[in-house]
Amino acid sequence: MLLAKSTWREIDERLKSSRTVIIPIGSNEQHGPMGLLGTDWMCPEIISHAAEKAGNLLIAPTFNIGMAQHHLGFAGTISLRPTTFMSAIEDWVDSLARHGFDRIYFLNGHGGNVATIEATFSQIYSHYSYSGNPCPFILKLRNWWDLPGVLRLCAKLYPKGHGSHATPSEIAVTFAAYPDFVKSAAMEPQIAPDGPIRDALDYRARFADGRIGSDSSLATIEQGQQIIAAAVTALIDDVAKFEAE
Amino acid sequence: MLLAKSTWREIDERLKSSRTVIIPIGSNEQHGPMGLLGTDWMCPEIISHAAEKAGNLLIAPTFNIGMAQHHLGFAGTISLRPTTFMSAIEDWVDSLARHGFDRIYFLNGHGGNVATIEATFSQIYSHYSYSGNPCPFILKLRNWWDLPGVLRLCAKLYPKGHGSHATPSEIAVTFAAYPDFVKSAAMEPQIAPDGPIRDALDYRARFADGRIGSDSSLATIEQGQQIIAAAVTALIDDVAKFEAE
Amino acid sequence: MLLAKSTWREIDERLKSSRTVIIPIGSNEQHGPMGLLGTDWMCPEIISHAAEKAGNLLIAPTFNIGMAQHHLGFAGTISLRPTTFMSAIEDWVDSLARHGFDRIYFLNGHGGNVATIEATFSQIYSHYSYSGNPCPFILKLRNWWDLPGVLRLCAKLYPKGHGSHATPSEIAVTFAAYPDFVKSAAMEPQIAPDGPIRDALDYRARFADGRIGSDSSLATIEQGQQIIAAAVTALIDDVAKFEAE
Amino acid sequence: MLLAKSTWREIDERLKSSRTVIIPIGSNEQHGPMGLLGTDWMCPEIISHAAEKAGNLLIAPTFNIGMAQHHLGFAGTISLRPTTFMSAIEDWVDSLARHGFDRIYFLNGHGGNVATIEATFSQIYSHYSYSGNPCPFILKLRNWWDLPGVLRLCAKLYPKGHGSHATPSEIAVTFAAYPDFVKSAAMEPQIAPDGPIRDALDYRARFADGRIGSDSSLATIEQGQQIIAAAVTALIDDVAKFEAE
Amino acid sequence: MLLAKSTWREIDERLKSSRTVIIPIGSNEQHGPMGLLGTDWMCPEIISHAAEKAGNLLIAPTFNIGMAQHHLGFAGTISLRPTTFMSAIEDWVDSLARHGFDRIYFLNGHGGNVATIEATFSQIYSHYSYSGNPCPFILKLRNWWDLPGVLRLCAKLYPKGHGSHATPSEIAVTFAAYPDFVKSAAMEPQIAPDGPIRDALDYRARFADGRIGSDSSLATIEQGQQIIAAAVTALIDDVAKFEAE
Amino acid sequence: MLLAKSTWREIDERLKSSRTVIIPIGSNEQHGPMGLLGTDWMCPEIISHAAEKAGNLLIAPTFNIGMAQHHLGFAGTISLRPTTFMSAIEDWVDSLARHGFDRIYFLNGHGGNVATIEATFSQIYSHYSYSGNPCPFILKLRNWWDLPGVLRLCAKLYPKGHGSHATPSEIAVTFAAYPDFVKSAAMEPQIAPDGPIRDALDYRARFADGRIGSDSSLATIEQGQQIIAAAVTALIDDVAKFEAE
Repeated sequence: MLLAKSTWREIDERLKSSRTVIIPIGSNEQHGPMGLLGTDWMCPEIISHAAEKAGNLLIAPTFNIGMAQHHLGFAGTISLRPTTFMSAIEDWVDSLARHGFDRIYFLNGHGGNVATIEATFSQIYSHYSYSGNPCPFILKLRNWWDLPGVLRLCAKLYPKGHGSHATPSEIAVTFAAYPDFVKSAAMEPQIAPDGPIRDALDYRARFADGRIGSDSSLATIEQGQQIIAAAVTALIDDVAKFEAE
Repeated sequence: MLLAKSTWREIDERLKSSRTVIIPIGSNEQHGPMGLLGTDWMCPEIISHAAEKAGNLLIAPTFNIGMAQHHLGFAGTISLRPTTFMSAIEDWVDSLARHGFDRIYFLNGHGGNVATIEATFSQIYSHYSYSGNPCPFILKLRNWWDLPGVLRLCAKLYPKGHGSHATPSEIAVTFAAYPDFVKSAAMEPQIAPDGPIRDALDYRARFADGRIGSDSSLATIEQGQQIIAAAVTALIDDVAKFEAE
Repeated sequence: MLLAKSTWREIDERLKSSRTVIIPIGSNEQHGPMGLLGTDWMCPEIISHAAEKAGNLLIAPTFNIGMAQHHLGFAGTISLRPTTFMSAIEDWVDSLARHGFDRIYFLNGHGGNVATIEATFSQIYSHYSYSGNPCPFILKLRNWWDLPGVLRLCAKLYPKGHGSHATPSEIAVTFAAYPDFVKSAAMEPQIAPDGPIRDALDYRARFADGRIGSDSSLATIEQGQQIIAAAVTALIDDVAKFEAE
Repeated sequence: MLLAKSTWREIDERLKSSRTVIIPIGSNEQHGPMGLLGTDWMCPEIISHAAEKAGNLLIAPTFNIGMAQHHLGFAGTISLRPTTFMSAIEDWVDSLARHGFDRIYFLNGHGGNVATIEATFSQIYSHYSYSGNPCPFILKLRNWWDLPGVLRLCAKLYPKGHGSHATPSEIAVTFAAYPDFVKSAAMEPQIAPDGPIRDALDYRARFADGRIGSDSSLATIEQGQQIIAAAVTALIDDVAKFEAE
Repeated sequence: MLLAKSTWREIDERLKSSRTVIIPIGSNEQHGPMGLLGTDWMCPEIISHAAEKAGNLLIAPTFNIGMAQHHLGFAGTISLRPTTFMSAIEDWVDSLARHGFDRIYFLNGHGGNVATIEATFSQIYSHYSYSGNPCPFILKLRNWWDLPGVLRLCAKLYPKGHGSHATPSEIAVTFAAYPDFVKSAAMEPQIAPDGPIRDALDYRARFADGRIGSDSSLATIEQGQQIIAAAVTALIDDVAKFEAE
Repeated sequence: MLLAKSTWREIDERLKSSRTVIIPIGSNEQHGPMGLLGTDWMCPEIISHAAEKAGNLLIAPTFNIGMAQHHLGFAGTISLRPTTFMSAIEDWVDSLARHGFDRIYFLNGHGGNVATIEATFSQIYSHYSYSGNPCPFILKLRNWWDLPGVLRLCAKLYPKGHGSHATPSEIAVTFAAYPDFVKSAAMEPQIAPDGPIRDALDYRARFADGRIGSDSSLATIEQGQQIIAAAVTALIDDVAKFEAE
């Protein structure tokens, strides 16, 4: 069930049997010479929408802009400052909790979001912890590549050149979903360098074409389909466990 | 050109010939017994993506959550507080301006967003006005129904029962785009009441099924196609004028 | 009854029979070569204080600084950033609501305030809408020129050259109230240009002497008296309707 | 010269010879059974406007709402939260500094404002101190009763019962300026108790009619005139010294 | 009892007999050529820890960074912006109040903190004053030099050259506590100049070696011991009175 | 070199040869029945001060209150809200960067701080990334137990019952440093349960005495000395590498 394509009465009805909602969350940022700018919000959207067809899940609209300050040196990147990102997540959670959702599951597509999302969870829980009132809902963050079995599959598919940004796995997922937008580009060097992540100019100086440690050109549509299939199964299972808690 | 489905190099290339970007912006909120919760962000997304196919436009990802506090009494509504909404818009603008965009056009799908978006424009301009530096970009807000000719078409299609929330025109647009999600429901009363908009409980008490002044059941797929077509033409023209300014 | 010239016991007593309060709100900003910097807060103050003598109204102190970032290129303009303006209005409302006022009516004198005041109303209502508690008061914004009949009178008095900033009508109101401060200046051009409002430097470049679309020199004391008289009658009536709601 | 009753060109002209501006700042809060709610903003307004007639001063509009949280238990009090108060003062200062004012003098009428105004000065200076840039203006806070000679006069006029809130001196100043609004009430007890200032309920419990340590009934119009005269002379002198610094 | 060196169960137990807690609060900032950067947080820490040994007090960890923007021109100074300082104090108070502490006593070591701490108290009380709820705790600020008898002792020890920053008294206290860190330096001039405090560059220009009005070289270990002894006695007494209130 | 026990001139001198500074950062929060409330800020303070004696390091004052909202159900815990924590870290960094420090190393003692500190780093870098200016400093976060070799030693010392909160290793470190404050208590159960961390009431319900997964009673002074020794060596080495970068 896609929340945005439902009416409020359908959501009301759904709430009688399940109080769980999944929010695909990511970022819109450069993904090297071949990767789509939307990769990080498309991946959790693609996986969760596929899982919605296979299971009985409620998927919220996609939270498509995240914390990508370090990519601002590359055109097309759109970032929220951490404090803004935190306020926006709080408002999403407060809205959904207002309706009675008590299991709010963020399926994340961007490593750079993790710290800020976790800090936000603490900020949200703080309202209850200072007042001494019980918090009526539970928050969970899961990166799609950390869904059980997914990273193992990626390691098998890409024993070399997976890296950590503009990875062939995430690019394969978007290729599988949007075959009309498959791009190709020469990788120079074939495997991008590694290094620390700091501000935007530092990033651009270290990672000339935007990739970190990856060879994006390994990505194929077929691999993307495999990864999506593995992630869908794992997501349905992971949400079921969360709901059962 | 869809920004999210482009690479950073493609955006870099595009910036050499055009520094204009369009942001579809809306809200995820109840739209009565027949309307999709996503109606207000889907409409500008549908229209701008259709225009992208017909013209030479660059469309950013959709800003899908807006100012919908008054709808929070209905399940599925997700709202940003005005202050959060303002910060998020600022960060989008600062990101895009960082890359050199100097014409930033918001195609809006939610009347309840208008005041806060305009206040945000003032907030953004303030940074320059207090410092005495020139602002390097121009911001524009356009509601899709205010595109030249569109409201006139709606008035012709729905001489009675257009109303102002869960209108047959916006519902028709989503039906045309997502025919698999056409919903039907009895309208009681046929035309919803009118009244002021305040907080969520007041809203729910005044507008029992969520509509204001409208008869959503008038919407058809065919009308939606007509409205989209009119809006696409008008949008391409409106953006061209903005770019030429 | 002027709140600031009353004692707390008099306000306590008044609250037994009426829980309505009127806040004159405006801006302190350039008004062209003839207009007083205080025009936009003086007009609602003048009208509401005159109405207080004629009717049974409670008038709060004047909120005299508003959102005038675009006028900062002209000396004497004092502006609040939109976020500050919002916080201040919230605190006024929270203070008055604390005493039991449940009808809070803003009589506004500055078009540039409208969006931010409306965004603030949403922000204030949000506190109740997220929590699910009823909001114990109603907020209303009315521009003095939108009081029934006033704009029609202005159009009659100034069929040409009314414009939208440093209008002869607002200048006439201040001349009527402060005849010792009537100013005169050559209008060059006689009727000022029109155009969009953006940041301060852009504004100054477009509107060399500060006016927009107006010929301020049409203003006379006698016209100001007429406008005040019309506005006073309309205000008393408008507040009565609001109170009766 | 009253800023609000000037045109921007007159302020531009004035800036050629003087870059000093005086802001009357106070609070709108209960002042016991006889004192006007506006006492604390009226006193600096009365004194500075009288001084403007006697000397060559530029007086900004009155900042009429301050930090009065402790008085919120009494009807008619309007308070800004300290953080809001700070933001608003910052915006006033930034606006005036934008025009080239480099001596910004706050004539204060409310003891409860002092700490927050001083904290704001630190906040404003911080922008320069962290960046290492010189601050182009100087800020000064002066309570009207601390103008040289004034407190001595008050002590002479009211050897007993001056107290610290709803004092006969401040009430006398407002009586002298607004003789039509002279109020009278029995003082019970004749001299109000003293005590610490905390939150609103605590305040109301300690100070039943709102006064602290004072006998407001000692105030007369004639004394008010004396105090105003002394304050006017001292203010003109104090500003001259500030300007000369 | 030192809170940080206790277990939560010991604090729980303590709360049964006393709900008072003392927070040493200061600043880390330049103190002239001889004074330690930590002087202002060390003094209240030294005095309160000594008092803890002598009396039955509960001492919280030291709040060691305060409002020192004006000292940022001197290396080693660490400052919080006033708004940050306020938020941090609020969080400390909210945390301690959560456990049931109802007397929260700040022993302050930095004059530059006073205004902001008092503004924070107002901010904290505001939460209760706007809502109309009683505040369950009392806040108190005491500068260690204002403890009864201490300033008199300092005046006796340093009839000349005490001054107001990098005073011999505060330096003596740190020398007494940390004899291994006694420093010496030539004082040029012997007694530093006086003047107003504004931004960092202005401060550095006025006060070349950082001192204000003081001759730090007067400080001796023995005097420091005397001052500590006097302050300890006075603190125990002052807290007892506060607790008894 | 301890910053707080130096003069500003000594820091100025130091800056000529090294621009690196180490900030011990932690939290003040319950640590089970035996652990000191200050454990998490004491550990990095103990280790860094010991390293300062052994190497040539500059140690800032200890940042002693962190993000501990989940521990607020236990007396003595003092927490900053994440947003406050972020602002405070920003102000520390801005202060130190103002003096020319370009390597700012946080030695952290609390796992619950990690996400918020990392989000703050992004917030700080954002100022540069949006503006397109280079960031003049590098930030680094290191948990003391993640210093090379330390966790391995802990695993050897405590093959069972190390856990993740109130661990024997952190308690041993404080015992070694403060042998007068060694506490003992029965562990029930011997090894505490594991589980997720959410709000304060949830935490207290899951972890009755405050520990997570640990047997604090394993801690001895001698083990603490071993751990400190290992951490000191590793810290000096880690900082040297950071400085050399």
